[in-house]
Amino acid sequence: MGAWNVDLQVWLKPSVFDPQGHAVEQALLSLGHEGVGHVRIGKAMMLCVTAESAAAVEEKVRAMCETVLSNPVMETYEIVRIEPAEAAAKAGESR
Amino acid sequence: MGAWNVDLQVWLKPSVFDPQGHAVEQALLSLGHEGVGHVRIGKAMMLCVTAESAAAVEEKVRAMCETVLSNPVMETYEIVRIEPAEAAAKAGESR
Repeated sequence: MGAWNVDLQVWLKPSVFDPQGHAVEQALLSLGHEGVGHVRIGKAMMLCVTAESAAAVEEKVRAMCETVLSNPVMETYEIVRIEPAEAAAKAGESR
Repeated sequence: MGAWNVDLQVWLKPSVFDPQGHAVEQALLSLGHEGVGHVRIGKAMMLCVTAESAAAVEEKVRAMCETVLSNPVMETYEIVRIEPAEAAAKAGESR
């Protein structure tokens, strides 16, 4: 059994209006930041999962995403990275 | 002037307790997802910025991050990707 670092993102589906993104876009424009648009805001998640292999980690994380971490009706999720925690620690990455 | 797609992430500093991450971790464990820990939740953002060059985009985005998109006292930000919007469109990525 090993420890794995997982990075994933959860986004509203493109067809769903993003009120938070819209509000931030308006704030940026009203504060003088020009030339910015299409602002969308999602959730970035880091977690540590113990499992036998990267495939086992992916399976576990998909189950978490589909039941707890995202709402399949309105959101999509993307597993961005699965990496042995040891490798990340060596690369000086702190969690 | 060109359109650029920017992906960035905003995280609470590691020294700051993450109540949302903690709550999600407890929910995962109580719903039977074993072997998961160190859950931290941040914001993932996509935006479209018009500027002359990638360097100009980075400068604009840093200014946005330091004034609107993150709270420098408690959060850190990371510009994950700056890419010409055209290239992304060709690669079939929709925003």
